[in-house]
Amino acid sequence: MENLYLKKAEQNLPEIKEKVIKPYAMTNAMSKGDGILIDLGNHYVGYFSFNLDYVDVYIDAPVRLYVKFGENAREIGDDFSAYEEGLCMSWLQEEIINIDFPGEYKMPRRYAARYIYIKVVASPKKLVLSDFSFKAVSSADEDRLRACDISDEELKKIDSVAVNTLKNCMHRIFEDGPKRDRRLWTGDLRLEALTNYYTFNNLSLVRRCLYLFAASDTNDKGFIPGFVYENPKFVSGNWFLVDYALLFVASACDYYNHTGDKETFNELYPAIESQMEAAHRALGTDGIMSVPKGCDVFIDWCRGLEKTTSLHGVYLYTLKLFVNVLENIGHGDRDVYAERYNAALECAVSILYNEEKKAFVNSSDNYQYSVHSLVWMILGGAVREDEARAMLADVLNSPDSVKPFTPYMHHYVVEAMVSLSMNENAKAYIKNYWGDMISLGADTFYEVYVPGDPDFSPYKDRMINSMCHAWSCTPAYFIRKYFN
Amino acid sequence: MENLYLKKAEQNLPEIKEKVIKPYAMTNAMSKGDGILIDLGNHYVGYFSFNLDYVDVYIDAPVRLYVKFGENAREIGDDFSAYEEGLCMSWLQEEIINIDFPGEYKMPRRYAARYIYIKVVASPKKLVLSDFSFKAVSSADEDRLRACDISDEELKKIDSVAVNTLKNCMHRIFEDGPKRDRRLWTGDLRLEALTNYYTFNNLSLVRRCLYLFAASDTNDKGFIPGFVYENPKFVSGNWFLVDYALLFVASACDYYNHTGDKETFNELYPAIESQMEAAHRALGTDGIMSVPKGCDVFIDWCRGLEKTTSLHGVYLYTLKLFVNVLENIGHGDRDVYAERYNAALECAVSILYNEEKKAFVNSSDNYQYSVHSLVWMILGGAVREDEARAMLADVLNSPDSVKPFTPYMHHYVVEAMVSLSMNENAKAYIKNYWGDMISLGADTFYEVYVPGDPDFSPYKDRMINSMCHAWSCTPAYFIRKYFN
Repeated sequence: MENLYLKKAEQNLPEIKEKVIKPYAMTNAMSKGDGILIDLGNHYVGYFSFNLDYVDVYIDAPVRLYVKFGENAREIGDDFSAYEEGLCMSWLQEEIINIDFPGEYKMPRRYAARYIYIKVVASPKKLVLSDFSFKAVSSADEDRLRACDISDEELKKIDSVAVNTLKNCMHRIFEDGPKRDRRLWTGDLRLEALTNYYTFNNLSLVRRCLYLFAASDTNDKGFIPGFVYENPKFVSGNWFLVDYALLFVASACDYYNHTGDKETFNELYPAIESQMEAAHRALGTDGIMSVPKGCDVFIDWCRGLEKTTSLHGVYLYTLKLFVNVLENIGHGDRDVYAERYNAALECAVSILYNEEKKAFVNSSDNYQYSVHSLVWMILGGAVREDEARAMLADVLNSPDSVKPFTPYMHHYVVEAMVSLSMNENAKAYIKNYWGDMISLGADTFYEVYVPGDPDFSPYKDRMINSMCHAWSCTPAYFIRKYFN
Repeated sequence: MENLYLKKAEQNLPEIKEKVIKPYAMTNAMSKGDGILIDLGNHYVGYFSFNLDYVDVYIDAPVRLYVKFGENAREIGDDFSAYEEGLCMSWLQEEIINIDFPGEYKMPRRYAARYIYIKVVASPKKLVLSDFSFKAVSSADEDRLRACDISDEELKKIDSVAVNTLKNCMHRIFEDGPKRDRRLWTGDLRLEALTNYYTFNNLSLVRRCLYLFAASDTNDKGFIPGFVYENPKFVSGNWFLVDYALLFVASACDYYNHTGDKETFNELYPAIESQMEAAHRALGTDGIMSVPKGCDVFIDWCRGLEKTTSLHGVYLYTLKLFVNVLENIGHGDRDVYAERYNAALECAVSILYNEEKKAFVNSSDNYQYSVHSLVWMILGGAVREDEARAMLADVLNSPDSVKPFTPYMHHYVVEAMVSLSMNENAKAYIKNYWGDMISLGADTFYEVYVPGDPDFSPYKDRMINSMCHAWSCTPAYFIRKYFN
């Protein structure tokens, strides 16, 4: 089966669109120690080339250049040599290159950048750099992008940055970030695919990614990995996240809902079913989702976050989507899963909801007031709509609650809001969180953004942060689907 | 005319022969900080590639490697970061590369190396480097190399290292050194071409180089530059060495003498003649060669060397060769140049020879006892053979004389010896000077070698020395032409 899936993934390899950016830059004669900053005018992902020529006298030695790519201006200013290693320093986009001959020089690697800084490390003679060219690549076809018909200028701007974020993460796969990690994650895929449906609508790319996960190696509990690699060859990841595995199913359901492509859904069905069965086996004796040994759960990056209720919510949410699709296509398994949903819902209400506190707990003796638990219970259908609105407002405004941390979790807060028809709240939430990044000059939305602490890094050093991260692209989804 | 010459040079672009070296190297799992040394088993010039793979777990970040190429082991041991800049540091063969994906990695630049050292600068996971491959390139065709039939094992070894030196300098042009400078020099060309005739006998390469100089821009005194570049496009050098310009003529004569190719000689004739005329114009009122303003003279790298007599000797030497060729081809200019030779010879004897001292001086009030003056006077035909032998022995043994410094000048000492039928002295001289480098482990002969001071560098730091330099290759010429 795996080989068939890989073959299908290969067949759906998207076409890469190219667009050449010719930035303006002063081209004065440069000597050792001189530097030049090139501004591409926007954030792009692609390949950089330039021309090197001599001035008056031929350069009779290789020219050694330091070249640094910055997703934003701050990155150019930061001193990479002072980087404190959390994640591997090789993600920092810097090169030392030696050029033997004058003429065009094409740098072979792909970079994510708005700014490029070049410094002459060594050259015996004066030289001139010119003809700067950045071949931007993406599997997003800009010709297919529909205009965003929204009068709210702020949301329009947010939409354009969100679209740019998605575009720059769309390559051979939906990458999480084009500067760093460049991997396909189940959880990220779902958000990218959803936004893609309302923007570039590249369906083969979605299919490719679904097939890649279908081809992956499940662990001994039956879960697919949270991520895979596919370049230069397919490699199955080694981290098994239960919520992410469920969201793979959700992604397949979204794909069917968007396309009505029963054939692909049916082809994926064995992989989908195996995830639902693995989840079913992971239910505790109390009927609540647990995280089996050798597995993990993501939900969000909050330190100390209790995740049981959120995970159970992801299970409910996925079952709901799944049952709905099975019903649409008239699948015989529909009733089995509908029954499982009802049972899981019953347990959620009876075990995870504390009447006294009027809030969700993680178990009878583990109460943590978190946005996460409530949001996922809302999305899972475990909260009555009229109660949910007030509860959501309360948990978001409470000084004591655990708040969402990643744009990924912020997405599900907004999704809960729109599911409760709280569109004005959703808009305000988006403007507040994503709009804030724009006020900092963002051309693309960040992997992580902590309001009031723009230098925050979950990896010890902000230099390694990804400033264009696909899980942050979903404002375009909400704006185009709900606010239009 | 220039364009015709460049066209001819292009037509004579030699075929590049490739030979793949597969060095053995342990391929253990490596982590950040680990290094590996690869020994190619000999000195080669070419392109390096290898395979990078992960161990157990996929490398989920680019791998940053430091790669250093050493012409010998000492270079690998030296710390390039401590290099004291004389010549541009970019000649040091080191790279920092970032590799995004496992698989084959081909380094794009050409290196001159016996040893390759690779260190893992950054990698989040363990990796394995393997399939080391060095694609050696040269325009020397080893299939055309005749065996060296000499019983003396020491000379045989010297021959093989000399041949290796020449081979590794033969590319699109005769390069001076494949690690550093990589330029075509008139003076170096002559020695490379001579040795080439008795080894690989690549005639198109010689023609190409002669045409390139014929295409060069002469200065206001009419001299061609000491060097040219030709990659990616032809660039005429800006240093005008009178002795080197004369040796361009000598090279053209050598070519005719070796090949009998009158057509090429005649095509080159305008360029040849213009050099002889420029030299004629450079004669002082006393009839002795001078160095016109804007020009320079090489002879050797000895500090404080008086060069007038040597330069005049180069003029005589070239005229002698030139007249001989003109006579052979029955050229009408023969008598003009024969007359000039006689006049220049007369001046040499009457003005530059001091009867009292029984030695050559540089002018009536400038006496410097040097090997250089005598050697070039011998080669110019200004010393009687019976006297020359004793004089040469004396100047070489005198504690007060200025001695040859570069292998280039040592060549002309040996040439003077063989011209005087002092073959045993010549053999001993070669064994002493070039043999010494072999005892230091040389796979190729050095650009500069000072017996007793193997660390000496004319550029302040030995790291930048070229350990394979074509002007050191001539023992193979002497061994094969005279000692066989």
